[in-house]
Amino acid sequence: MNLKLVFNLVGRVLIVEAASMALPLAAALLYGESPVPFLAAALLMLLSGLILSAVPARKSFFAREGFFAVGLIWLTTGTMGAMPFFFSGCFPSFVDCLFESFSGFTTTGATILTEIESLPRGVLLWRSFTHWLGGMGVLVLLTALLPSMGIRAHYLTQAESPGPVFSKLVPKQSQTSKIQYGIYCALTLIETLCLRLAGMPWYDSLIHAFSSAGTGGFSNRNASVGAYGSAAIDLVITVFILLFSVNFAMYFLLLSRRLRDVLESDELRFFLAVVALSTALITLDITPLYESVWEGLRYAVFQVASIVSTTGFATADFVLWPKTSQMIIVLLMFCGACAGSTGGGMKCSRVLVLLRAIRREIHRIIHPSQVEVVRLDGKVVEEETLRSITTFMGCYLLVILLAALVIARDGFSFAVSFSSALTCVSNVGPGLEAVGPSGNFAAFSPLSKLAMSLCMVIGRLEIFPILVLFSRTAWRRN
Amino acid sequence: MNLKLVFNLVGRVLIVEAASMALPLAAALLYGESPVPFLAAALLMLLSGLILSAVPARKSFFAREGFFAVGLIWLTTGTMGAMPFFFSGCFPSFVDCLFESFSGFTTTGATILTEIESLPRGVLLWRSFTHWLGGMGVLVLLTALLPSMGIRAHYLTQAESPGPVFSKLVPKQSQTSKIQYGIYCALTLIETLCLRLAGMPWYDSLIHAFSSAGTGGFSNRNASVGAYGSAAIDLVITVFILLFSVNFAMYFLLLSRRLRDVLESDELRFFLAVVALSTALITLDITPLYESVWEGLRYAVFQVASIVSTTGFATADFVLWPKTSQMIIVLLMFCGACAGSTGGGMKCSRVLVLLRAIRREIHRIIHPSQVEVVRLDGKVVEEETLRSITTFMGCYLLVILLAALVIARDGFSFAVSFSSALTCVSNVGPGLEAVGPSGNFAAFSPLSKLAMSLCMVIGRLEIFPILVLFSRTAWRRN
Repeated sequence: MNLKLVFNLVGRVLIVEAASMALPLAAALLYGESPVPFLAAALLMLLSGLILSAVPARKSFFAREGFFAVGLIWLTTGTMGAMPFFFSGCFPSFVDCLFESFSGFTTTGATILTEIESLPRGVLLWRSFTHWLGGMGVLVLLTALLPSMGIRAHYLTQAESPGPVFSKLVPKQSQTSKIQYGIYCALTLIETLCLRLAGMPWYDSLIHAFSSAGTGGFSNRNASVGAYGSAAIDLVITVFILLFSVNFAMYFLLLSRRLRDVLESDELRFFLAVVALSTALITLDITPLYESVWEGLRYAVFQVASIVSTTGFATADFVLWPKTSQMIIVLLMFCGACAGSTGGGMKCSRVLVLLRAIRREIHRIIHPSQVEVVRLDGKVVEEETLRSITTFMGCYLLVILLAALVIARDGFSFAVSFSSALTCVSNVGPGLEAVGPSGNFAAFSPLSKLAMSLCMVIGRLEIFPILVLFSRTAWRRN
Repeated sequence: MNLKLVFNLVGRVLIVEAASMALPLAAALLYGESPVPFLAAALLMLLSGLILSAVPARKSFFAREGFFAVGLIWLTTGTMGAMPFFFSGCFPSFVDCLFESFSGFTTTGATILTEIESLPRGVLLWRSFTHWLGGMGVLVLLTALLPSMGIRAHYLTQAESPGPVFSKLVPKQSQTSKIQYGIYCALTLIETLCLRLAGMPWYDSLIHAFSSAGTGGFSNRNASVGAYGSAAIDLVITVFILLFSVNFAMYFLLLSRRLRDVLESDELRFFLAVVALSTALITLDITPLYESVWEGLRYAVFQVASIVSTTGFATADFVLWPKTSQMIIVLLMFCGACAGSTGGGMKCSRVLVLLRAIRREIHRIIHPSQVEVVRLDGKVVEEETLRSITTFMGCYLLVILLAALVIARDGFSFAVSFSSALTCVSNVGPGLEAVGPSGNFAAFSPLSKLAMSLCMVIGRLEIFPILVLFSRTAWRRN
């Protein structure tokens, strides 16, 4: 393991993070708030970044260095991202700041805040900006900004990109990263404008656009998106969080005028089918609670989009809905969005591959001599990839259960412990009962909060980059 | 699909089931109760059995016929097994009789009865005897009894035997089945004697020996094993349910004086480690509730053995224990016993293979060019088996979540819906909260009860024999 180069990379990311303080700093100055939290945090990031990036290192860089660096970079970025919260003095403890920062960067959107609206606007902007930074990925950003690192950058972005198969849009990684961020910025900008047009103030529009883009879920209102009570705003956000849940490669295909490839994407079709079916079932289930089937549909489609995209915005408290709807929401939390999007969860493509692998097992029993392959988008899924996918899913369940075991020490109900673990690993945000859309994560013990923060990173990076950090073999010099 | 032969086999099993009515019938006569429920049920089974077994059929029999037949036979056996309950008039509805019968045959042990002790002794004996019949398997019994079927009998027992890999003890299947049933009968007999010596009445000893042997969990006492309040009885049952959770191949190895092979079994070691670790953690967690650490240990080890073996006997109500202990119990419900035992769950060998597959994924990241295989008991696990195992686990989770979705319609809490689905698929018996050791399944809707009954069979047969039944391809003539 080339540890020196890994530290060097951590340093570079910290410098980028220091630069990203400019946005909340500007907001603080604009609204006449104290700039100190952001200046202090930026200084800390810059200093440690400069020291680490000055470490001389050989350029030998492979997949293991990539995974290892990504794991370490995310833990560092999340920890440093807590500094503005800590210096602002608005948070009860440092562990709470860590939780909020990891929840931000991993685009989970779970909060330990019980009251949001009284916080300084700069702090709230940073909180949502972490979603935006973490959504597309800090390493993707790094490779887009610094193309001349002289190392094989795809080893970095590969470890950070969600989904079972990693593919570059164009041969050069830095170019791919630039295209991805270009699409990302454009969509964010369009959403900001649409929200403004729908009647949101500029500041709120930016906050909600950042949170939608990263499929995070932090709002600057206590009642989340529900606070605006506007069907137009609901609609804009529903559309955009769904757009951000789709593999960004689809937009690249669209820009390359390959609409047919988009329409033939198995994952996209499956994703849309999941959204449509869940919306229909929940609408049927909740309509008796509302005035009309249209109102039921409005809340159902928003919540389905919010959960399946793993955003976590709320316009209604699903904890008050019938249990069937809540169980559908739990299923959606497992499933999550598409690979290569900013959304979390197991990813639709993995669930689809699992379903097809199950069908193949049945066919194998009926026709044992017949060789059958699993296909996705018409292409054969390699047996090794298939094994990786199912192993990943087993590991996913294991992480959730072990996290629930740690959280259970706090004595909350099974629903709270289990759904907290699930919502953190899947980067959704709300859970069931006390941690539902109207609840928060303030009441947990520091140990649980740290465990949940780790779960968020494990979920965001799809487990292995963090497991590699804990592997003895990885730390060995060679 | 050779449907005629499948029906023929269903017929044969029904005749065996009719014969098995002799035991509860004898008990009913001995205790001066009405023999009518058992006579009527036996007649029904015999008649339908004779008709079906008379269907002339070609002897072409392969894996698909095996899986298909096993699925259909279990559904039929379970349905017919409900008849004595139905004719006894002690059950609120036919759906309840079905639930109880499937819970019996699949060795789940979940009950819809709110009061047990007032039931006729013959009925209660049949209830526990279904555990015994289903534990080792009705097809294993059939192949042991009728060696001259002229078909490849291992296709039948293969589909019924739990675990990722099927192995015969001796080349001939009928011989293997006889050895398995021999060990099974011997252990059941020894347990009956031990329970009698520990102070249980003969009748109760037989009931509890049947329920332990099948790792089922039906008791003839409302308070389960806790009703006796005897440390000696607790100890006997703890030891025997653990013995019945071990792969029966181990006993064959012991009889063949191959102790070393037993000691080197990875699954056995893992199973014992799981039992030891869970017992230690739960003892620590619950000791404050009891008078001494020894008392804590006594209840902890019993409950751990009861859950990991998927029996479901209770000496304490774990729903009243701290949440950490309850979460450990949920983890044990997923894990379950060893392959080739009478226990349920995912099976220790699968969990172990998953853990090793995860370790390999990490090593692959660190050393991508290094080829690494997953081993179990020193032998290489074929990549196809590995894929089957992880696919099975994904499917297992999917079945639990879909079942929980159906059950959620009844409006119970998430913990109740989820743990009911889990406990049924894993064939454990008790769940959390209202379906805990002191609770029962009476309050569910008929739809949920039917869904749970199906889940029990799906879990007992490890999913695929039931999925094959629902596959269009399987029903086609060829």
